[in-house]
Amino acid sequence: MQKKQRKEVSGPIRDKERTKKKLIATIGKILAEYSYSELTISRIATVSNLNPKLIYLYFGGLDQIIRAYLEDRGAATALSAKVALNILDHPNDIVAEDIAFFLEKQFAELIEDKEWQAILHWGLVTKNRYVKKLIDERNARIDAIADTFKKSKDPNLQYSESAAEMAIVAAGARFLSMRSKNEDTFLGLDMTDENDRERISRAIDKIITAEKNSPLH
Amino acid sequence: MQKKQRKEVSGPIRDKERTKKKLIATIGKILAEYSYSELTISRIATVSNLNPKLIYLYFGGLDQIIRAYLEDRGAATALSAKVALNILDHPNDIVAEDIAFFLEKQFAELIEDKEWQAILHWGLVTKNRYVKKLIDERNARIDAIADTFKKSKDPNLQYSESAAEMAIVAAGARFLSMRSKNEDTFLGLDMTDENDRERISRAIDKIITAEKNSPLH
Repeated sequence: MQKKQRKEVSGPIRDKERTKKKLIATIGKILAEYSYSELTISRIATVSNLNPKLIYLYFGGLDQIIRAYLEDRGAATALSAKVALNILDHPNDIVAEDIAFFLEKQFAELIEDKEWQAILHWGLVTKNRYVKKLIDERNARIDAIADTFKKSKDPNLQYSESAAEMAIVAAGARFLSMRSKNEDTFLGLDMTDENDRERISRAIDKIITAEKNSPLH
Repeated sequence: MQKKQRKEVSGPIRDKERTKKKLIATIGKILAEYSYSELTISRIATVSNLNPKLIYLYFGGLDQIIRAYLEDRGAATALSAKVALNILDHPNDIVAEDIAFFLEKQFAELIEDKEWQAILHWGLVTKNRYVKKLIDERNARIDAIADTFKKSKDPNLQYSESAAEMAIVAAGARFLSMRSKNEDTFLGLDMTDENDRERISRAIDKIITAEKNSPLH
């Protein structure tokens, strides 16, 4: 009797929540496997193997389920975000090695995260404000870090083009991770190969921590 | 009489060629303004203000007109390609400054070329072999340059992570140029602003030509 009662009370609600979660996760699956242009009601139904009517019933429509997915992604904290916040907690103590560590961490994370690669790819062309908001929030941290360089005691960070160098590295990490989707190489480097990823990581370290006192400019 | 005759003979052919060119150019317009996911018969008809039937009549269909556009793009030579070929003509004389010059040139070109940005963006997710072929051809030159580093007499290029550094810079230039579409800033840098582009250019130079003899690794 007790068992039956539990089922009657919480069963349908639990099922609904489980189905909603499955539908939201399907958005991530489609992004990772295809791209934003495949986010359609019929594709969600096919990939999730659920009735498309449930999308309207539980979310109201395509825009709303996409928004729910993006808000879920926004709530999840990336590991590199913790590194970033730690850096921002001690802005006066930042040295170039901290920046290199953060950028390498972010690159390693990006390479593994096909959904985030697809969101970045989407963000390059979309006018969807929830996509833009999500990306802006992530970028805000990296912007804030670059902003602290002027206050730094490390001459490598005080160097006038340090923020531009960091921009190139962060942008390069994004492009390289997006290219890894099709297992395409770039300058002979294969981002699905651990050794090649390691080479990129060492180059990031080198770019950020190399002595900036050569009299070029 | 003579005037009328010319019209009768070459007029319709000239018109057909002009219309074909206009339709092909419309593909570029749509890519630059929207993105690859908007490449549809109806969008081409609307943007070109031409009857959609002409696409079938002159090209055979959507795939064929897209292919014609991509082949046209492949035939056009970018300025930076000439710089690349010049470098490849003298592989033993390459110094880091040549590489920096090439990468800065390519970045400056990319920033201005919204169609190419859209093709790169498309190439990150598509399985269309003509898109991939076009991008591969362009990348082949940059791959070949990175391949010559081992032969170089410049210690900055012999440095083991030089190719990885070049990959980060080339990838960064691609991502930054793609981001310029929506006039989004990245680390406070606005790629539509000449001063900020100049900062990126100086940072590219710095990354590629900085002394690589610091005992980091």
